[in-house]
Amino acid sequence: MSSNYRNFRNNVPWLILFLEAVFIVLFYFLFSHGDESRSTVSYAAFQDVNHMVIFGFGFFLTFLKRYGFSSTGFNLLIVVLGVQCSVLIENLFYFLLEIPHEDGLKRITKAAVSITAVVISTGAVLGKTNPVQLILMTVVEIIVFHMSRWINRMYLQVPDDVGMMHVHLFGAYFGLAVSSCFPEPSPRSEKNASTPKSALLSMLGTLFLWVFWPSFNSVLSEDKKWEVTYNTYFALAVSAVTAFTFSAMTTKDGKFRMAHIHSAVLAGGVAVGYAADRIRYPWIAMILGLLASVITVLGSYCLQRCLNPALEIHDSSGVHFTFGFPAVLGALAQVVLLVAENGTFLTSLGYSVMFHIGAFCVTISMALITGLITG
Amino acid sequence: MSSNYRNFRNNVPWLILFLEAVFIVLFYFLFSHGDESRSTVSYAAFQDVNHMVIFGFGFFLTFLKRYGFSSTGFNLLIVVLGVQCSVLIENLFYFLLEIPHEDGLKRITKAAVSITAVVISTGAVLGKTNPVQLILMTVVEIIVFHMSRWINRMYLQVPDDVGMMHVHLFGAYFGLAVSSCFPEPSPRSEKNASTPKSALLSMLGTLFLWVFWPSFNSVLSEDKKWEVTYNTYFALAVSAVTAFTFSAMTTKDGKFRMAHIHSAVLAGGVAVGYAADRIRYPWIAMILGLLASVITVLGSYCLQRCLNPALEIHDSSGVHFTFGFPAVLGALAQVVLLVAENGTFLTSLGYSVMFHIGAFCVTISMALITGLITG
Amino acid sequence: MSSNYRNFRNNVPWLILFLEAVFIVLFYFLFSHGDESRSTVSYAAFQDVNHMVIFGFGFFLTFLKRYGFSSTGFNLLIVVLGVQCSVLIENLFYFLLEIPHEDGLKRITKAAVSITAVVISTGAVLGKTNPVQLILMTVVEIIVFHMSRWINRMYLQVPDDVGMMHVHLFGAYFGLAVSSCFPEPSPRSEKNASTPKSALLSMLGTLFLWVFWPSFNSVLSEDKKWEVTYNTYFALAVSAVTAFTFSAMTTKDGKFRMAHIHSAVLAGGVAVGYAADRIRYPWIAMILGLLASVITVLGSYCLQRCLNPALEIHDSSGVHFTFGFPAVLGALAQVVLLVAENGTFLTSLGYSVMFHIGAFCVTISMALITGLITG
Repeated sequence: MSSNYRNFRNNVPWLILFLEAVFIVLFYFLFSHGDESRSTVSYAAFQDVNHMVIFGFGFFLTFLKRYGFSSTGFNLLIVVLGVQCSVLIENLFYFLLEIPHEDGLKRITKAAVSITAVVISTGAVLGKTNPVQLILMTVVEIIVFHMSRWINRMYLQVPDDVGMMHVHLFGAYFGLAVSSCFPEPSPRSEKNASTPKSALLSMLGTLFLWVFWPSFNSVLSEDKKWEVTYNTYFALAVSAVTAFTFSAMTTKDGKFRMAHIHSAVLAGGVAVGYAADRIRYPWIAMILGLLASVITVLGSYCLQRCLNPALEIHDSSGVHFTFGFPAVLGALAQVVLLVAENGTFLTSLGYSVMFHIGAFCVTISMALITGLITG
Repeated sequence: MSSNYRNFRNNVPWLILFLEAVFIVLFYFLFSHGDESRSTVSYAAFQDVNHMVIFGFGFFLTFLKRYGFSSTGFNLLIVVLGVQCSVLIENLFYFLLEIPHEDGLKRITKAAVSITAVVISTGAVLGKTNPVQLILMTVVEIIVFHMSRWINRMYLQVPDDVGMMHVHLFGAYFGLAVSSCFPEPSPRSEKNASTPKSALLSMLGTLFLWVFWPSFNSVLSEDKKWEVTYNTYFALAVSAVTAFTFSAMTTKDGKFRMAHIHSAVLAGGVAVGYAADRIRYPWIAMILGLLASVITVLGSYCLQRCLNPALEIHDSSGVHFTFGFPAVLGALAQVVLLVAENGTFLTSLGYSVMFHIGAFCVTISMALITGLITG
Repeated sequence: MSSNYRNFRNNVPWLILFLEAVFIVLFYFLFSHGDESRSTVSYAAFQDVNHMVIFGFGFFLTFLKRYGFSSTGFNLLIVVLGVQCSVLIENLFYFLLEIPHEDGLKRITKAAVSITAVVISTGAVLGKTNPVQLILMTVVEIIVFHMSRWINRMYLQVPDDVGMMHVHLFGAYFGLAVSSCFPEPSPRSEKNASTPKSALLSMLGTLFLWVFWPSFNSVLSEDKKWEVTYNTYFALAVSAVTAFTFSAMTTKDGKFRMAHIHSAVLAGGVAVGYAADRIRYPWIAMILGLLASVITVLGSYCLQRCLNPALEIHDSSGVHFTFGFPAVLGALAQVVLLVAENGTFLTSLGYSVMFHIGAFCVTISMALITGLITG
């Protein structure tokens, strides 16, 4: 323990400082020409996403007693490192492929959306890693996520704002892959305990995420902003209602259990993210929210009993069912909607299935490889 | 107690699920044509109202120790059910009366403003009702509120954004009427105790409401957005100053008492809501804020001594003086301003008095009838 | 103690009421003509600044145990009094100098930015003053700050949005001057203790300030809004990374210490405020953020050992190194950037140095005089 701590003390500041120096040098070379274009992202929407990433995920992760205080601060560190890294890599791709640059505000907004993948992964490995591992994971995951996005965009003709919505899928399964490489901590250890106070903070984080989720889904959509907002709002609303219902059903005394609500309330927002600009009637979004929420509650019930012990996955924050399952459902729903809309255009249908499988494969394989390296 | 609990367990999830199913079916029939119009409500203003309803009222109601944690969650459930219900009823009226539809963002914003009535009523009955009663009250109150709004709009030519501001008046007196049907709990029971921590959360809720109140008042105003914001800000500011002053005066040791500040700080915002687009000079808004705050502090002092025991009203969160009195003052101020502006046009004056009395009658009668039914 | 308390009880409400009455009378005389112009400040940006002043500084100051609860409320009182006072004085200057009026939203936004000086000063004297002194300080400081801004604007041709950024410099040194007039409290007294809970609230305040700082810096900028946002974001990001690094380096066990992060995280935002519209490449903002953060951490280390005992300054919240040092650095950086950009135009360079020295002199001298009067 003592040598571990000395190791930690020696590594962390120098690692961060080294990363930061590399970032500044790269920024110097990549951003040395002024750009003057107008922004297509509204300032208010950018602030909402920023607010959501810092507060929402910051408090969402405070539910473990020992990590309450520092995880909020550490979340800030990961976000600021990841955003710089993400802006750099995005720009590197634009530079290498000679695509015209985007404006500054859109660049940061995209980076703030990408960093969500890292924050979700952090939820899966919380309590098992030290800060050095988390910082390395941040950098690796951001790079891999951007590669997977560019593969989707280049070879599978996925629009960029839809490709960005793979962020939950990627984050959840990357986190699980990394998590499976670590030994499972003793189940009754103090690190996994939660207190009423930390549960309240976690609820606060969930509410922040709930309120800002429509902004998150609509911020990168170019022309159908309010349809996306509208559909996301209804999916989230039905999701919240279903979460309360099933929570009261599955507990013995009929009381609401915060852990269920915590995860199921957001499922609708995750699921609707993929197809929010295609859904034309709110009832489709509502049914999607309902399904996502049911899957999450049942998933959390089944997974903790059967699957996790079998697959030897230890998932501290339940990211598998909070973000993983609804994301799979959302991707499925997108394909179903595509088929329902234009069943005859088989080429576009084929593309979409291809893109879906491609994204999946990239995610899982990349995640496993990196998980082993980080481990 | 045990049978009560089993009853609760059996009813709540099925009731919510039934409601949700009805909502989805109705959405299917009412919203099956796409609408393409541009939104007149800015996205940032919608987010502010959403933020305010979830956070502001969520924490505003956490001041009772036993309800601290679950009331924040339960507030979310009531809000999402109410918003869906409100969107449906609004659309049903549009459908029946064959008025052209509004865009999606405005629809949700209006629903979020309407739900404030329910949340205020919830404050009055908190600690005396069970979840089933609260959910039924939500649905009934939303329906009655929309009926009262439509009576005002159809027969009394009240513009829709002014009619919407009756939400505080309606919410407060509906809540009081329902509350009077329930037996008063024992005054020293544990359910009414408050802790420093819950008082802090409640203060947090008050601050959220204070910060977002200008958005709330201005969001539905079509053309005088910044005048409304400006007047509301000054009314709130003077209200806050007066709340601190009178709080220090009425307590024995000259300290500020949070309970006074809690309720009086918002009085100015409620009072100015009715006439914010008519007030041309900030000093009128400031005097209105001053009066509203004085009435609230004196009201809270007198009511708890004299009126409440006489009328057998038990008002858990003090919604009567926090929202009821300032709303009456605001409605009065609106009439006074109308008279001062165009004293000669007696027809418009007559209409406004008619509309005021009409709204009042509808509110009180509807509230009493429903209170008895729910009871 | 008892007579002190009676004194407090007698004075506070009447003082506030007297101030409020004066404000309303002055508003009546100064604002009795309607203005109709469109606003140049976006509503969302105004709300962000409002949000930041109430929540950010409200919680930032809760780190002392005894002042946790009331300082959040008291912050609200100071802000609302100061905003009214600031709007009045601004308008008085416009009235006396016969300049065309600005629109209402811009007026409140400017007042909300100005009030930051008072809130920062409050941080320096917290725990040593009573409410009467704080309220008097608020009014005096707002008047002196507006005078210093007008001297800068009239005689030194400083644009108004740049002059407004002196708010941190002015606030920090005014607070220190006032603080030096009060006897130092006993270092081990209970008033200076902090608890984990108050530290968490303080962290929450820091996060609020961090998230809304880009809004704060960009809200008054007329035409380069997104450049300012972009540069501020990167300066803040690097600042946060550096704060974590140096915090881990300077503590013995390599853990992050919240007190360091608390102050250093915001340093980049303060420093970049002066020159954010001149910085053309993000790497300049990043280096500025790095330097500001290093100065803050080293400053907090050195000052508490060497300088403070020598100069007999007791600085409760560390405003000297949190806001004072980065502001000096920012003003320096602005001069350096001016020299680097147009080294040949010696007149504009001379002006800028003059303006810088002028602002400094006004600030320090005014602060000392007022500090003695208040003392």
